[in-house]
Amino acid sequence: MPANQPNSRSDCPISFGLDLFGDKWTLLILRDLLLRGKSKFGEFLGSEERIASNILADRLARLESSGLITKAEDESDRRQSLYRATKKGTDLLPVLVELAYWGASHDPKTGAPKEFVKAYRLDRSGLLKRLKNEIKA
Amino acid sequence: MPANQPNSRSDCPISFGLDLFGDKWTLLILRDLLLRGKSKFGEFLGSEERIASNILADRLARLESSGLITKAEDESDRRQSLYRATKKGTDLLPVLVELAYWGASHDPKTGAPKEFVKAYRLDRSGLLKRLKNEIKA
Repeated sequence: MPANQPNSRSDCPISFGLDLFGDKWTLLILRDLLLRGKSKFGEFLGSEERIASNILADRLARLESSGLITKAEDESDRRQSLYRATKKGTDLLPVLVELAYWGASHDPKTGAPKEFVKAYRLDRSGLLKRLKNEIKA
Repeated sequence: MPANQPNSRSDCPISFGLDLFGDKWTLLILRDLLLRGKSKFGEFLGSEERIASNILADRLARLESSGLITKAEDESDRRQSLYRATKKGTDLLPVLVELAYWGASHDPKTGAPKEFVKAYRLDRSGLLKRLKNEIKA
């Protein structure tokens, strides 16, 4: 999917985002990158939702071509790639935090940490700042 | 998709949400309901992204069965249904606002109103309150 999105459905800013990550998997990869410090193919593959490797490869390629992540060689192991979120990708942190708060509030069986919910309610912008600082550069 | 989600992929609160609305269309229907005052099948069908009627019918049924919207008879025209967001659906307003702000910030061709971007930057929580008050009850 090219960065300039010739196939965008409309000029609505919500639709713009959904054209890029409106599926069940892409935002979970961004969650792993932005909230869990993951950066390697095998790490994403190991997440509890058990993404299939062909879907993961497809979504990583789309994220890269739309400028949300970069792919670089791992200098300690050149057979391996390291994925990092760009500024455009990192800017999705507030979306992920709102999704997480919504899920934590509405799923009776949620595994969301109580500290997250508490921190969100107490000081949302402080929480966002802290999470942003923790993202692997 | 039943409300108790027997097929949920994990207990992650982000995954919980994506199990319900992780596709290209569902959040656009919620946008129409929450931000554009739409409530009728034909109104959703008329949005600029041109959702197909079979997809719209499917997504409305899923939204209803997962408790995000309700469907009622239109008293002024009984052949027609009126869709409204529940509390659970309305609670997605911050997610939509963050998606809209992200899209407005990163799509060079965005159609997002400048007033929205300005209001978000100036007073996000005031904007959210105002948008919430404007939602059709």
